[in-house]
Amino acid sequence: MAITLYTFSTPNGVKISIALELLKLQYKAVNVDITKGEQKTPEFLKVSLNGRIPAITDTEGPGSTSSAPFSLFESGAILQYLADKYDPEYKISYKPGTLEHYKTNEWLFFQNAGLGPMQGQANHFVKFAPEKVPYGIKRYTDETKRLYGVLEERLKENGTGFLVGDHISIADISTVGWVQCSHFIDIDLTEFPEVNKWLDRLLAIEGVKKGFDVPVKWPFFKE
Amino acid sequence: MAITLYTFSTPNGVKISIALELLKLQYKAVNVDITKGEQKTPEFLKVSLNGRIPAITDTEGPGSTSSAPFSLFESGAILQYLADKYDPEYKISYKPGTLEHYKTNEWLFFQNAGLGPMQGQANHFVKFAPEKVPYGIKRYTDETKRLYGVLEERLKENGTGFLVGDHISIADISTVGWVQCSHFIDIDLTEFPEVNKWLDRLLAIEGVKKGFDVPVKWPFFKE
Repeated sequence: MAITLYTFSTPNGVKISIALELLKLQYKAVNVDITKGEQKTPEFLKVSLNGRIPAITDTEGPGSTSSAPFSLFESGAILQYLADKYDPEYKISYKPGTLEHYKTNEWLFFQNAGLGPMQGQANHFVKFAPEKVPYGIKRYTDETKRLYGVLEERLKENGTGFLVGDHISIADISTVGWVQCSHFIDIDLTEFPEVNKWLDRLLAIEGVKKGFDVPVKWPFFKE
Repeated sequence: MAITLYTFSTPNGVKISIALELLKLQYKAVNVDITKGEQKTPEFLKVSLNGRIPAITDTEGPGSTSSAPFSLFESGAILQYLADKYDPEYKISYKPGTLEHYKTNEWLFFQNAGLGPMQGQANHFVKFAPEKVPYGIKRYTDETKRLYGVLEERLKENGTGFLVGDHISIADISTVGWVQCSHFIDIDLTEFPEVNKWLDRLLAIEGVKKGFDVPVKWPFFKE
């Protein structure tokens, strides 16, 4: 098996390294420096047509040839692929066809389609926009906080300390990097006590800790 | 089998009715009027904790009980569920484990995590925001156009007239309602000829046409 992970130290980037570490898979990590536009090179676009990280290639993936290995982008699709192909013991997923399997996908999409895009826009308006746009700051920080409230309700509802079932899954993995960065937009996690405990619980897991430090040491932990 | 679809005439709402029509499944459609806040009632939140449409219940789903049927929200997770459980002939999906299966998920996530959220924000700033925010209008219409450019490239690359494989899949289904609404933000589809032809191709499919008119006649076709 030869998996190559193309990534960068972002909440989306570390999703895949965390999954790979938890599955104890061998892989090579390539740093794609998005601050230098390396995600838009013709070479990288062959792996990720959208020009975004993370992406993977896998010489054992379906349809792989020596000149064009199987490639996949979109963090949610990659997490599902890794679970499907490399998690026969259901360490980070649940058996296909079960309630937990479908609920994992529900919360995986909730992160990919909701919490990620909205918190990403909040980050932009709060931290990176070249002009101060109060409307944008308020719109996206409000919506992000609403979504953290939904996470809080879900953790209460499930009652196990994880988003789905009774152990970590790709739904938690997809979410942890974003929650770890919520201090960027001054979200006070003590307002979301279940989310706060969940974050500590995840960060105490060895593979999660290791995954955060790929491709380089995670620069966003709060002291 | 008793599937209930909770939906509204939006690009996300029609994804599920289109899939159900193409699979020729029986279902009951419930109109959840989001202009009246019906997606935030305690009753609906039991089905969709995030308070968003679409959502389904299915009395044949895993874990269903008479008082609490299986329920699922997030359009991407619902499409994967329907394909997994009700598409044994792979009419709108591909066999698990194949290249086409994983690529379907890639373009499904591309729509759910990228094109949908960004075009949704463009809609907001162009059509619905109570104040004119030029920064927001430009940011999101520019990004949406970039993403249409990626769709255009993908259709050229795949070369079959569909996003993945050689027939319609949940990736196309997820995208069609959004592209059909691109006139909201004045996207000129003649700039994206492959996307334009793809839209016509999809709208000519009987189940797609029928799905657009659930729960009520689709109000957004351009004359």
